[in-house]
Amino acid sequence: MPSRKLATARTVGVYLVGGLGDIATTLLVGACAIRRGLASRTGLVTDLPPLDALGLIEPAALRFGGADIRPGTPLEAAGAVYRASRTFSRELLDGVRDDLAQLAPAFAHDPALQWSTACAPGDPPLAEIAARLRARLRAFAQAHDGLVVVNLASADAAPAPSACTTDLDALEAALAGNRKDLITPAMLAMHCALMEGHPYVNFTPNAGPELPSLRALAQARRVPHCGNDAKTGETLVKTALAPMFAWRNLRVLSWEGVNLLGNNDGRMLAEPQRRAAKLRNKRDVLEKLLGYPLHSDVAINYVPSLGDWKTAWDLIHFQGFLDVPMTMQFTWQGCDSVLAAPLVLDMVRLADLARRRGEAGAMRHLACFFKNPIDVDEAALHAQFALLLAYARDRAAPRAAGRRGIRRDPSPSAG
Amino acid sequence: MPSRKLATARTVGVYLVGGLGDIATTLLVGACAIRRGLASRTGLVTDLPPLDALGLIEPAALRFGGADIRPGTPLEAAGAVYRASRTFSRELLDGVRDDLAQLAPAFAHDPALQWSTACAPGDPPLAEIAARLRARLRAFAQAHDGLVVVNLASADAAPAPSACTTDLDALEAALAGNRKDLITPAMLAMHCALMEGHPYVNFTPNAGPELPSLRALAQARRVPHCGNDAKTGETLVKTALAPMFAWRNLRVLSWEGVNLLGNNDGRMLAEPQRRAAKLRNKRDVLEKLLGYPLHSDVAINYVPSLGDWKTAWDLIHFQGFLDVPMTMQFTWQGCDSVLAAPLVLDMVRLADLARRRGEAGAMRHLACFFKNPIDVDEAALHAQFALLLAYARDRAAPRAAGRRGIRRDPSPSAG
Amino acid sequence: MPSRKLATARTVGVYLVGGLGDIATTLLVGACAIRRGLASRTGLVTDLPPLDALGLIEPAALRFGGADIRPGTPLEAAGAVYRASRTFSRELLDGVRDDLAQLAPAFAHDPALQWSTACAPGDPPLAEIAARLRARLRAFAQAHDGLVVVNLASADAAPAPSACTTDLDALEAALAGNRKDLITPAMLAMHCALMEGHPYVNFTPNAGPELPSLRALAQARRVPHCGNDAKTGETLVKTALAPMFAWRNLRVLSWEGVNLLGNNDGRMLAEPQRRAAKLRNKRDVLEKLLGYPLHSDVAINYVPSLGDWKTAWDLIHFQGFLDVPMTMQFTWQGCDSVLAAPLVLDMVRLADLARRRGEAGAMRHLACFFKNPIDVDEAALHAQFALLLAYARDRAAPRAAGRRGIRRDPSPSAG
Amino acid sequence: MPSRKLATARTVGVYLVGGLGDIATTLLVGACAIRRGLASRTGLVTDLPPLDALGLIEPAALRFGGADIRPGTPLEAAGAVYRASRTFSRELLDGVRDDLAQLAPAFAHDPALQWSTACAPGDPPLAEIAARLRARLRAFAQAHDGLVVVNLASADAAPAPSACTTDLDALEAALAGNRKDLITPAMLAMHCALMEGHPYVNFTPNAGPELPSLRALAQARRVPHCGNDAKTGETLVKTALAPMFAWRNLRVLSWEGVNLLGNNDGRMLAEPQRRAAKLRNKRDVLEKLLGYPLHSDVAINYVPSLGDWKTAWDLIHFQGFLDVPMTMQFTWQGCDSVLAAPLVLDMVRLADLARRRGEAGAMRHLACFFKNPIDVDEAALHAQFALLLAYARDRAAPRAAGRRGIRRDPSPSAG
Repeated sequence: MPSRKLATARTVGVYLVGGLGDIATTLLVGACAIRRGLASRTGLVTDLPPLDALGLIEPAALRFGGADIRPGTPLEAAGAVYRASRTFSRELLDGVRDDLAQLAPAFAHDPALQWSTACAPGDPPLAEIAARLRARLRAFAQAHDGLVVVNLASADAAPAPSACTTDLDALEAALAGNRKDLITPAMLAMHCALMEGHPYVNFTPNAGPELPSLRALAQARRVPHCGNDAKTGETLVKTALAPMFAWRNLRVLSWEGVNLLGNNDGRMLAEPQRRAAKLRNKRDVLEKLLGYPLHSDVAINYVPSLGDWKTAWDLIHFQGFLDVPMTMQFTWQGCDSVLAAPLVLDMVRLADLARRRGEAGAMRHLACFFKNPIDVDEAALHAQFALLLAYARDRAAPRAAGRRGIRRDPSPSAG
Repeated sequence: MPSRKLATARTVGVYLVGGLGDIATTLLVGACAIRRGLASRTGLVTDLPPLDALGLIEPAALRFGGADIRPGTPLEAAGAVYRASRTFSRELLDGVRDDLAQLAPAFAHDPALQWSTACAPGDPPLAEIAARLRARLRAFAQAHDGLVVVNLASADAAPAPSACTTDLDALEAALAGNRKDLITPAMLAMHCALMEGHPYVNFTPNAGPELPSLRALAQARRVPHCGNDAKTGETLVKTALAPMFAWRNLRVLSWEGVNLLGNNDGRMLAEPQRRAAKLRNKRDVLEKLLGYPLHSDVAINYVPSLGDWKTAWDLIHFQGFLDVPMTMQFTWQGCDSVLAAPLVLDMVRLADLARRRGEAGAMRHLACFFKNPIDVDEAALHAQFALLLAYARDRAAPRAAGRRGIRRDPSPSAG
Repeated sequence: MPSRKLATARTVGVYLVGGLGDIATTLLVGACAIRRGLASRTGLVTDLPPLDALGLIEPAALRFGGADIRPGTPLEAAGAVYRASRTFSRELLDGVRDDLAQLAPAFAHDPALQWSTACAPGDPPLAEIAARLRARLRAFAQAHDGLVVVNLASADAAPAPSACTTDLDALEAALAGNRKDLITPAMLAMHCALMEGHPYVNFTPNAGPELPSLRALAQARRVPHCGNDAKTGETLVKTALAPMFAWRNLRVLSWEGVNLLGNNDGRMLAEPQRRAAKLRNKRDVLEKLLGYPLHSDVAINYVPSLGDWKTAWDLIHFQGFLDVPMTMQFTWQGCDSVLAAPLVLDMVRLADLARRRGEAGAMRHLACFFKNPIDVDEAALHAQFALLLAYARDRAAPRAAGRRGIRRDPSPSAG
Repeated sequence: MPSRKLATARTVGVYLVGGLGDIATTLLVGACAIRRGLASRTGLVTDLPPLDALGLIEPAALRFGGADIRPGTPLEAAGAVYRASRTFSRELLDGVRDDLAQLAPAFAHDPALQWSTACAPGDPPLAEIAARLRARLRAFAQAHDGLVVVNLASADAAPAPSACTTDLDALEAALAGNRKDLITPAMLAMHCALMEGHPYVNFTPNAGPELPSLRALAQARRVPHCGNDAKTGETLVKTALAPMFAWRNLRVLSWEGVNLLGNNDGRMLAEPQRRAAKLRNKRDVLEKLLGYPLHSDVAINYVPSLGDWKTAWDLIHFQGFLDVPMTMQFTWQGCDSVLAAPLVLDMVRLADLARRRGEAGAMRHLACFFKNPIDVDEAALHAQFALLLAYARDRAAPRAAGRRGIRRDPSPSAG
């Protein structure tokens, strides 16, 4: 394990697929702002004890690059987010303007990273797309002491059922055979990351970490990964709140949710086939949490005027003693990207640690970040968070001496 | 410990101080309805596994009695609750009418159980009040295989600071000296229960289980007890929801709560000195959960037209990444007594078990039921519930063999 | 005009198409309860001054009959509503049980009153269905001093575009030609009512009063009618609230609404083609009220556990001075049938008056009761209500002597 | 009356008592932004037809000055509002920075404009305070073609009952006699405005336009005035919504309101004696609107983190047909100053018109702007707005020829 001195000198690359979206942009603004001391680190889960004793890479030591199907630069994207949603202040934007400007060369414009199943003549074949992406990853990785690939792209339609999802050979044959009808953009992105040996964080509902074909590759290459579909609002609240009903033996009759959002995510999710995976993730969680089937619908409506400010309203109709029906409702008004961006930092930091420690496969300890965590049955937020704490305690113990909230370990090897 | 055969034959008395209030009445209706199969057992926490494997006394084997400062009978009180709040249906009321009617002789009308600090001439002295209450407890206990005393009375003003709260001798001297200015009704009730050797459940915010003087008595008599101030609505939600903000490192700036209720509890709490203890319990919990001081007010307003249907609205103003402020709000519309009554059954069942097992003092494992649990620092609902599960697993282990949902282990070694 | 004495002796028939639905049933229970003094007249708009000075038929003098495609009796339907939604108390139901029982013979079971466009062999032709309905109306009318037909049936799909909607001859040819693909059940019902000379109240979003073909018939027969789609919840609130934004020159950016309901209406509206007319009525109203196009969606979701208790949540995103965006949200939790039923009584009373006074065609003064009022452009509730007040003042003046809120007219011809 | 050419050349002074508060500051920013075309005129009621045809002074022709007990300049105040509440964007602030800077000389720092009833030695006497204020008004008025005085100061305690409130001679004797125990700061401000012959707009709940003593002065000097207590949020909604319940004959059982706000207004209103007038205004309105007494409480809580963003939650518990109880709730999240500032512009424009037209006394047509309008019984928003429309139609008639939305009638007879 590196000494403390080396740890601070390390730099780790973060490669963002969908690098000009709202979440990516907010993340870049935030990382720069934190480095310059213009914003607090509020929202960073990895700052909580005992996670803060894991020797994680500092946000200031992360170096960002990426690709997007849209043209533009991080600075332009930040200006657009500021104008549309005013999530961060003009002062903050001004304070990181130069930093953002310097990021431009690291962000590639690559429209080929998205495709429809019907190929147009002249479209580059999958093998070429993959080769280009891997070349970029390789170049970026050489400049740093590690690299984490994060998928922040828009929602794909689900992959067509085929052997590609279960069998690695079939997947690679389909890549070679340019089967855009069988391989989704996210599957390609994860394949490239793994082939290059870099941890992969699937922030989206897109296919990837749950597919046996790609999991086999991750194991073969000894690469950690995580997913699917980060939870930042309504589902987060559900996984915190639904156990309360279970623990009081109150029977939930119906749980109806409405999500209004006006960002690009909302615009894309207005298409039913893109929305399908997200809705499934949102619905299934309640049945897991409560242990019985219940009436539960989730609507996602595109309301442009809200910009990045997602407003969710949920009605919970439940039955208590003497079978008396009662209700709870909540409204959640949060800025989607502000809720999401620090989780990317958290997962990058933890993925980098896992890779350094030689841990491979699904990072089960990151379950608390996802609507549909891979390889973790537990749906309750407290239990998912306990997985993260337990992971941290196991690994942090020798270093935790002297930190807040942590029992001291008097062994001389600490620190 | 009794054999299984005896276990089913056992009856346990439940003595309700404040036996004609809305919670007590709903409890009586519910216990009768469950016994007759007219209502489900929804809301009974002790029906959840592994609690259901503890061999707890069945609700059908509980026998109820009590006293109230108001005149009336359980049947009359049930009619009044039905008319004011329609929490249960007329069919249900009709179905338990005869059962309720038979309870009348077990409920005493005793106005002396409440007093103001300024004694009027002719008021019975404390020693006489206590003697009467203890005589009733003794008579009731003789008819059953156990007795649990539950305080469901209205909120008292806090006891004046004195040695009575800390020193048992001082307390007993004050009882003998008729110091109604130093002894509150709830202190007397708990003293009587302990002197008679019966577990004491303090459902109210009134003083008792937290006082060193009475705790010393509980230890001396080897009696279990629990309190204070059962959580059934807004505070329950707070203890489920606030950890979510902590686990995401989101900083709560303000948490404002408003409680509207129209039952007798609401009417009494409209008096500021009665409200004080309840408000303190409601406020302190957030600081414990979040670990830092925050702006938090809780209002309790009396709105007669709502009857027993408590409506709480909370606004949570919090800060995320880049210090962006966001909001969550919730509305809770529940029937107070329906939420409270099954918890009384739960605590009675568990108190009876503790007494049978020879456990004495504060029942820490009941923390999840209270706003201000005695001897438990943990304020998060999941952690409090984990205490209950751990308690149950320890004691249920031999019986829990097999899996969730299996109620009985027929092996002769059980129990 | 009849003298006052005769007025009290008059009885008026109310013929309910869809006579066993929740609204009809609640109306019957309510009318009986009011007659017996078991419930107040709260919710009756026609009890407000100056409407109360119009000499309207008393609710107690109304006599009810009707038809439904479902089998059953009013008493059975009332029991079902009571069990599903507990909108009225058991005491109330018991108090009107005998009255409801006596209504059974006046309610026909007639499955032919609904059809799909694809006729099955053996289905009765339209001419036969109409003849049967008209025969029932005629028999019922003979027993009373007037008759009003009210459509309370489930939502139809919209009629196929054809000359039937615009031309009376074409409509009658289609009836004779059994064109079930061109004539909807509600068109037939209105045709029958008008042919028999009885006022027609279209409580539903179904086609009728707005069709030129049927309007021509109403004029020819000198019969008053009204519609479409009574407003009882979300739309009612919209028409009261949206003018506030207009009067403050606040610009509404988005107005999103969600309606959750669990009654038969909700079940039928879960079918998109049935929902279309209702959604259009709900959406159009905002643009009329505000004077500019805006983003506005309305969802109607079926949530069985809610029964007749409709829960609507609306988010209003608006812009003020300096173009600052702000929000308002509201939740409406009302019992659909309880909100609707008194409006039926109001409209029947006013339709009876109109007929007695020889008024024909669209009753514009009833606009305040409808989502999409016929022949009235004004969408604001206050302006619609002003139409009703003006109508009443015109006609009530001579009689208003001595009533609350009404200026006395000392003329001896009053009464 | 001035010709059209002169009308555009006219400038009107606006003298703001409390000129550095949040509302005043937002007003200054907004007026400058509108003049420079940096913001729309959204929120200006006087832009609606037919008000836009009254030939009102243009906002660009208003010139602002004022006094405050706090030190500072409008530019400093704008910076503070921007930092605390971010109601307007940094770009907007930058765009009007120079304009705001130029306003500084017109704003006086005068701590003597507020006093407690207990005079400290050395405090200037009332006569001196008044003389200074009048001198400022006189100087400011000379530079313009008219002047309107607007009270935007913090809430005073109510004036002690005395002849000063009813009798002008007594009031003037008390001013001369330095009776700070009888004269409130707002009474003095209004007295000065009237003595100088300038219209007075009382935006606050402070005493003034309703006092017979000051009204007598207004009549004697032929000066128009208006008040009290502008409505911008919860009360505005109440006056739009409560009539709906009345028009449906739904009986409101309870209407509970909670207002959370974190601006200086909120801080001052946390003191019970300052809050009294505001709460009374908020409560009385419902009884006026509904016509019967009802349970209604209004809470105002200070929540600093909300800044100028007022959050109000109201619960309306009402009874419908068959006496069934139902509920509505709403949440209002608005920026207090953004809602208030354009109303100041509206009232200034209309007060200037009234003065030009020689209208004196209470401006009844401004009732729709106030919680407690002077001389107007009507509490419903639509009826109050109708007063304004009628006033405008009467006076705009010659110009309004043509139709809605046409701004100017170029005929030489106009005006």
